[in-house]
Amino acid sequence: MAEIERKWVLDAPPRWPADHIARRVEQGYVALDAAGAEVRVRRADDELTLTIKSAPGLVRVEEELALSAAQFDSLWALTEGRRIVKTRHLISLADGLTAEVDVYEGALSGLVTAEVEFSSEEASAAFEPPEWLGREVTGDKRYANRSLAVDGLP
Amino acid sequence: MAEIERKWVLDAPPRWPADHIARRVEQGYVALDAAGAEVRVRRADDELTLTIKSAPGLVRVEEELALSAAQFDSLWALTEGRRIVKTRHLISLADGLTAEVDVYEGALSGLVTAEVEFSSEEASAAFEPPEWLGREVTGDKRYANRSLAVDGLP
Repeated sequence: MAEIERKWVLDAPPRWPADHIARRVEQGYVALDAAGAEVRVRRADDELTLTIKSAPGLVRVEEELALSAAQFDSLWALTEGRRIVKTRHLISLADGLTAEVDVYEGALSGLVTAEVEFSSEEASAAFEPPEWLGREVTGDKRYANRSLAVDGLP
Repeated sequence: MAEIERKWVLDAPPRWPADHIARRVEQGYVALDAAGAEVRVRRADDELTLTIKSAPGLVRVEEELALSAAQFDSLWALTEGRRIVKTRHLISLADGLTAEVDVYEGALSGLVTAEVEFSSEEASAAFEPPEWLGREVTGDKRYANRSLAVDGLP
């Protein structure tokens, strides 16, 4: 199932609603294989996972495995130079939609992006973004997590 | 800890002892990343594992995770064209040493290799291989599992 989503780059973090969910996410790439899969480790709050995702164009596979703290630490060491650290904030929009606003740290400090996921192409096309969402970058691969981790700020 | 081992290519499978341990091993590479890690799935008898190994030269890391049958099947689909299927036979040698004799199948059919692991460089140098071990290929990267899986028969 393809995700239907649009993405924006914000000039600065928005005014946060008093009451919203936010969680810090650290992720790093253990392996990026053009002909094979990408393998990522992630810590989101206390959840430690390893995710294996098929390369685009291959049969679509995504598997997630739980890691112990020791396994996470050991594998995290392999991701040096290919990491993303960000805090993801969930902001409610009109029509039951949610903006996932990512505020990046470290080498990507200053970058703020937002994604909104839609249930249909029609809903996606009909969406009128509030001004604070900034500049749309939907489909711009330079803003994919993988590109940000490897190539840094666009 | 570096392994001290020597490797041979046999002309044909040896005469098997009546009583020896053998197990079938299927392994495939999910990701091979020159700058990162190699990620492999493996079925050995009923043991299903995913192994992440750092690339040579990086901090040395090896982690093994257990897979469910469904996870194994899903990830196995990603290894097409980068697989090895073999039966490993354990053959006792003199001085408490063991030859691990691998009989390959599929694209590598006809290939038979053997490895012997030693407790010291001295023991390795002193070892006089029985004639059936054939031609020594210690250090020849073309016979590494990874090379055999990706490049096929040398």
